[in-house]
Amino acid sequence: MTPDALEARLRQVGETRYHHLHPFHELLHAGTLNRGQVQAWALNRYYYQRGIPIKDATILSRMEDPALRRVWRQRIIDHDGSDDRRGGIEKWLALATGVGLDAAYVTSCRGILPATRFAVDAYVQLVRERPLLEAIASSLTELFSPGIISTRVRGMLAGYDFVTAETLAYFDARLDQAPRDAEFALDHVKRHARTSEQQAAVIDALETKCAILWTQLDALYFAYVAPRLPPPGAFRPDDLAPPDPAPVAPPR
Amino acid sequence: MTPDALEARLRQVGETRYHHLHPFHELLHAGTLNRGQVQAWALNRYYYQRGIPIKDATILSRMEDPALRRVWRQRIIDHDGSDDRRGGIEKWLALATGVGLDAAYVTSCRGILPATRFAVDAYVQLVRERPLLEAIASSLTELFSPGIISTRVRGMLAGYDFVTAETLAYFDARLDQAPRDAEFALDHVKRHARTSEQQAAVIDALETKCAILWTQLDALYFAYVAPRLPPPGAFRPDDLAPPDPAPVAPPR
Repeated sequence: MTPDALEARLRQVGETRYHHLHPFHELLHAGTLNRGQVQAWALNRYYYQRGIPIKDATILSRMEDPALRRVWRQRIIDHDGSDDRRGGIEKWLALATGVGLDAAYVTSCRGILPATRFAVDAYVQLVRERPLLEAIASSLTELFSPGIISTRVRGMLAGYDFVTAETLAYFDARLDQAPRDAEFALDHVKRHARTSEQQAAVIDALETKCAILWTQLDALYFAYVAPRLPPPGAFRPDDLAPPDPAPVAPPR
Repeated sequence: MTPDALEARLRQVGETRYHHLHPFHELLHAGTLNRGQVQAWALNRYYYQRGIPIKDATILSRMEDPALRRVWRQRIIDHDGSDDRRGGIEKWLALATGVGLDAAYVTSCRGILPATRFAVDAYVQLVRERPLLEAIASSLTELFSPGIISTRVRGMLAGYDFVTAETLAYFDARLDQAPRDAEFALDHVKRHARTSEQQAAVIDALETKCAILWTQLDALYFAYVAPRLPPPGAFRPDDLAPPDPAPVAPPR
């Protein structure tokens, strides 16, 4: 594949596998979830946000080129913040408390779904164990995030009276950061994935990353939307409806 | 806690968190799943079975006592087999082909749910990264398996005309192996988990293992029972009913 054909193929992964297609997001953005369900989303995604700079520090630790590290370290700064600027994790915590969760409960990570933990930890493992090129490629989901962020902010502000623009401040900076990061990573991948094996591997890494995001929403949907069965020990919102009376009898 | 009080606490984890309580198992054992759903279970659990000796070899590699290793290595022999005896993985593959799956498709692990991969990989990570005592404690779910195995074999033979005793041969040996393994591990944990920190840690390890099993069934239920949404790229049985027409409108 030419570099441009590879880019087209990577963008096709986003069109078919990115989590903008997941029904949990459709409900979230349509304003049809209740407060407990939005809380469950914010609580679980905190664990993802918390893992991002750990993931990026892992990638940084594997880069041997100082010029590459100089670019990549900005991701860690963006998420961890600095003395005069709140980072992404702090803003996500503000989002979680803004929708009514206790900050200490959120940062303890008690109550998150096990699937959230396994999926996010798999992301850190991927960038630790796979070749650096694949680790970089796994970040390319950010290519697809501007669209979903716009839809989400508009939909959540319109749909939930308990959500304010201040609550969603996390997403403002991401609208600039994500495309900047994604363009750099895409350019790197297009220049370095030259053999068909490397190209297949970076496509696979991006598909795996999409699965990591998708799995988190599957778990939220299963636990809090239908059939509403949070696993033992997981967060139970006050307004969780009782589970569906009986398991759906499947067709024989 | 005394060693016996610790045992009681560990058994309580099983009573409240082991996957015999999961609604997917209730459907499986009641004979109310269709063939494609049973195939999805067999396909995904193959990835778990495949991981067990890797998990046990990881534990073995961390044991410094030859006497301990001599006992533990039997688990690997049981699952990998020998010249004259089929191992657990081979028997599981026979189960999977027995319910109609292609052997090459099963062993390729293409088509498994991403959540299956993340959960099983988390199990291997746990025994690699946590103290050896916790790695051993995470195997204690086998304390609870004889009950579910009896229920399963009886229920599946009665409920599915495409399942034979030969198909389920995997479970015969497990009825002897699992209690033997579990009693040894339980005795080890009771003797070595002495401080309250160690006792809390082994309880936590067993809870995490229960979550690893539970998460796999959540994913099966979500993908193949309700709302029947296999993630992109996952196995789609021929007889998969179309997804529920619309996401369930949750209560406000």
